[in-house]
Amino acid sequence: MSVPSAPPHSSTAPTAVTVLGLGRMGSALAAAFLAAGHPTTVWNRSPGKADELVARGARRAGSVAEAVAAAPLVVVCVADDPAVHQLLDPLGDALAGRTLVNLTTGTSAQARANAAWAKERGAAFLDGAIMAVPEDIATDDAVLLYSGPRALFDEFEETLRVLSPAGTTHLGEDAGLAALHDLSLLALMWGVLNSFLHGAALLGTAGVRAETFAPLASRMVKVVAGYVTAAAPEVDAGSYPGGDATLTVHLEAMRHLAEESEALGVNAELPRFFQLLADRAIADGHAGSGYSALVEQFRKP
Amino acid sequence: MSVPSAPPHSSTAPTAVTVLGLGRMGSALAAAFLAAGHPTTVWNRSPGKADELVARGARRAGSVAEAVAAAPLVVVCVADDPAVHQLLDPLGDALAGRTLVNLTTGTSAQARANAAWAKERGAAFLDGAIMAVPEDIATDDAVLLYSGPRALFDEFEETLRVLSPAGTTHLGEDAGLAALHDLSLLALMWGVLNSFLHGAALLGTAGVRAETFAPLASRMVKVVAGYVTAAAPEVDAGSYPGGDATLTVHLEAMRHLAEESEALGVNAELPRFFQLLADRAIADGHAGSGYSALVEQFRKP
Repeated sequence: MSVPSAPPHSSTAPTAVTVLGLGRMGSALAAAFLAAGHPTTVWNRSPGKADELVARGARRAGSVAEAVAAAPLVVVCVADDPAVHQLLDPLGDALAGRTLVNLTTGTSAQARANAAWAKERGAAFLDGAIMAVPEDIATDDAVLLYSGPRALFDEFEETLRVLSPAGTTHLGEDAGLAALHDLSLLALMWGVLNSFLHGAALLGTAGVRAETFAPLASRMVKVVAGYVTAAAPEVDAGSYPGGDATLTVHLEAMRHLAEESEALGVNAELPRFFQLLADRAIADGHAGSGYSALVEQFRKP
Repeated sequence: MSVPSAPPHSSTAPTAVTVLGLGRMGSALAAAFLAAGHPTTVWNRSPGKADELVARGARRAGSVAEAVAAAPLVVVCVADDPAVHQLLDPLGDALAGRTLVNLTTGTSAQARANAAWAKERGAAFLDGAIMAVPEDIATDDAVLLYSGPRALFDEFEETLRVLSPAGTTHLGEDAGLAALHDLSLLALMWGVLNSFLHGAALLGTAGVRAETFAPLASRMVKVVAGYVTAAAPEVDAGSYPGGDATLTVHLEAMRHLAEESEALGVNAELPRFFQLLADRAIADGHAGSGYSALVEQFRKP
């Protein structure tokens, strides 16, 4: 197979980029590179997904090998880690000299294994996590987190910044950090949405619509974003001043929430789980501590 | 006992107010009324707590009965519902003609019972919930929610607005609504804080400080506040379009979070609980639905 040589990587001309995987997210990434003037090669298992990008100037690669050969920077965004290896394992040494940026969701263990795997093949490797929906790519709302060698991030930062102009963050040398942050941030999303849906179910019993509850809920969530900032130094210091809002006070309100839920025929597992954690912390001597003391419960396997 | 007559309630002069209970929150409420020029009478079980307010112009009542007699509007902010009744039950008909605003935390059932209880004694009644820390009272960050007769709220709105200039909200005629909203909003706080502390524990295993995680977490929480707004009409319509982020996709990421947690020696109960809810929704036919479909799980006792 004849493999075209890669365009030179230069700090003056826009870096050539290859995007492997053209789901909604991969397509958004490729479109952003194209719009910013980067020569962009795309590949997808079902080639039709490239049509719109090709119409906008992307180059369609006939194979993964051709795609990887076309640019020094190869961005991978596919369904999961097995899909990454299904694509790249057959390439062998064709990855040598390339920089892989893996934006496929996975675990920190997978990311660290992929870093070692890339090294064996002579490729440089950054793992990344996309904290955005496809529509947010290339806007100031997009946050993309990277982990791996700092020098490598620095080398490609200008290009990567195309995807998240205001939120391109290097977390550290440990390739696993992006995945760990990704999952920890997703947990915040699930935590908020579960509580909102629980509240919507509870208020629904009194005829309150979710759309009526949402503005208050949204405002509360933004207020609590500030509590996160306040909790962090307490977590780091291992000191959890309670003020008026001791765990005992929280537990009493949690009990109210559980009782309301049960009385109104709503699932009470969420408040009962809240209670369980607070109960344990109080049993560990934190009755007069603030909420941050619960971090010690999460640290226990 | 000689009971002074109440100053007249007029729309031109600032309404006279009585505040029962001078914990940190009650003191903040009384201080706000005082600062806004309202004649303010205060009472607390341990009278010393009134000293600072008296120095600023508050009138110290010698008994609950004297306090209640001193103003048409009586704001109660004590530890819990039994404490409310310990204070007010002995008063009998002395409450007649007064408007009680109960800002003590409780359940919707307690609020509805209190509304009936007040009616029997000839008093008007609003239940309220304070979504703020004492420091926020009288600032634009304070949100105070009220439920009960709309006409009564309208009558005292100007006075109540002193406590929360930008966030004085009447939720509806049902006295239970403030408590239901209060608990539902607290659930959002616990949801966010639990996920943050779980994330801090997880990232701590890789040497990441909570203070390093907090800015990203705080930003994510604010982003998710927007997801709440987007989820509400789906909940009301009972239609949960998944887009790319189906429950199947969420479940896979939840599984990653649980596996990471277990592998790193962190408590995995939170992600396992997330999984349990998603699993059930998928079993109910929502594999391709979006996250809002979980509301149906919360509606089940």
